[in-house]
Amino acid sequence: MSKLVIVGTCAFDAIETPFGKTEKILGGAATYIGMAASKLNNVDPAIVSVVGEDFPDTYLSLLKDRDINIDGLEIVSGGKTFFWSGKYHNDMNTRDTLVTELNTLENFNPKVPASYTDAEIVMLGNLQPQVQLSVIEQMAKKPKLVILDTMNFWMDIALDELKETLKKVDVITINDEEARQLSGEYSLVTAAKVIHEMGPKYVVIKKGEHGALLFEGNNVFFAPALPLAEVFDPTGAGDTFAGGFAGYIAQAGDTSFETLKTALIYGSCLASFTVEKFGTERLESVTREEINKRLHQFKQLVQFDIHINN
Amino acid sequence: MSKLVIVGTCAFDAIETPFGKTEKILGGAATYIGMAASKLNNVDPAIVSVVGEDFPDTYLSLLKDRDINIDGLEIVSGGKTFFWSGKYHNDMNTRDTLVTELNTLENFNPKVPASYTDAEIVMLGNLQPQVQLSVIEQMAKKPKLVILDTMNFWMDIALDELKETLKKVDVITINDEEARQLSGEYSLVTAAKVIHEMGPKYVVIKKGEHGALLFEGNNVFFAPALPLAEVFDPTGAGDTFAGGFAGYIAQAGDTSFETLKTALIYGSCLASFTVEKFGTERLESVTREEINKRLHQFKQLVQFDIHINN
Repeated sequence: MSKLVIVGTCAFDAIETPFGKTEKILGGAATYIGMAASKLNNVDPAIVSVVGEDFPDTYLSLLKDRDINIDGLEIVSGGKTFFWSGKYHNDMNTRDTLVTELNTLENFNPKVPASYTDAEIVMLGNLQPQVQLSVIEQMAKKPKLVILDTMNFWMDIALDELKETLKKVDVITINDEEARQLSGEYSLVTAAKVIHEMGPKYVVIKKGEHGALLFEGNNVFFAPALPLAEVFDPTGAGDTFAGGFAGYIAQAGDTSFETLKTALIYGSCLASFTVEKFGTERLESVTREEINKRLHQFKQLVQFDIHINN
Repeated sequence: MSKLVIVGTCAFDAIETPFGKTEKILGGAATYIGMAASKLNNVDPAIVSVVGEDFPDTYLSLLKDRDINIDGLEIVSGGKTFFWSGKYHNDMNTRDTLVTELNTLENFNPKVPASYTDAEIVMLGNLQPQVQLSVIEQMAKKPKLVILDTMNFWMDIALDELKETLKKVDVITINDEEARQLSGEYSLVTAAKVIHEMGPKYVVIKKGEHGALLFEGNNVFFAPALPLAEVFDPTGAGDTFAGGFAGYIAQAGDTSFETLKTALIYGSCLASFTVEKFGTERLESVTREEINKRLHQFKQLVQFDIHINN
């Protein structure tokens, strides 16, 4: 079993899309990452997060039932759980945030359980860079791979802290606009080179419906997104991608470029399920057979023969 | 030898990019399509187009030297050649048109040379749908494959004519926004199904730097664009793509989904050269060895192993 430490939010989300709306449902980066990683074999995931007293036992059970360790999930007495509410536009690619209540997240001080400070893989979900750094520093043994997800918000208000944290990170996952912002370069190839210099050996650039790129030095790999007839709710797709990615690496037990390529496909594959229903619903129900079938679809989507002319 | 009829503009372009600007240089859809197709083996391409007396002999020689038949390239005495001038923005993805002078193109009445009315493949570059239709109607023998490229402009001002023409077309190539406009559907999967119903068995959706999709019924294939450190001049990339695509199909001699998949890769591969220099310069100089090397890069870009969990 490979231990995988996952740091991020556990949250309530209320989501509105052109197809309907939800009450407060289970959400948060660590939730999606953990649930996605739990779909892999021989992975022992542990969530490090914080919630309030209002976080239902059923949600805790849902995580535990998937063999996700929650010893590092702090429950603050009298506290309220982080709450996000958003509304997607008709194109499903853009959204307005309606409500953000940080609540217990405001003073989140993550504590990695002692039994996980020797984890092989650390997946840092999108959070303040200082909080992400504090998790790296708690590891008793240098992990095989530290993966960091972040976003433009931290580049705007905490760029120096983010750069400090990046020095200790092996893989960064960001979207194309964020890669451009962080590097000051428009070309993603050049942006990746600039970001390599900041610390991460691997740069993963997420392009949503346009797939994802993996850069390592001069090596580049492209994972497509599966063209879908209907995207029902994009919430959690990026975190599911990160969870499938980190989970596959933990399962494989090595951190080669070849392994990371397949990890990118696993991440894209699991994310393609998440968007089919509201919240975590589809990710909860997806079966091994469905995942395997869709992995083959990814293979077919890009497989071709070259007939070289001489 | 497979005959390939190419209809489209031969033009003067004047281009400005963040990297520099050109005087009037050789341009036009038929030019790029023809030059790209001429890179394939056993293909006999013929350009059907119109230019003015100002079109230099050196440009005519440049086409003839590549074994592109120009019997159908009308030279209007006293006429002037179609001229386009544009300026690209810093992101290289958007541009302003500075000048469009239709000149001889305004009364373009294409005539397919008698010796090419039995061509196997017809590639209709972006033009008025009625003009495209008149070419299909001149074919003495039903071609194996009629490919049509078009754009939003014709959907705006000649939608009915476009729909009439599409009934006689096997493959349509358009970009993602145009696919959405033509179908009224946001999802590209659904858009492709709607466009199938209009006539084309195959729908190719071009996404520029995000690659291209090929749909045939429930089959889908994705060809990536090669991530490039520097795009010098995007002019002609879409037409080069079309030319590599049509040329490969002509070379292969069949119109199966498998053949069209590889054709998409050839198109993407050749387009990746065109953008490296101004106008047709790079496409003119590219060697067989360079093309083959880059085809391998495309293969590596998307190749991965799946390790299925049971």
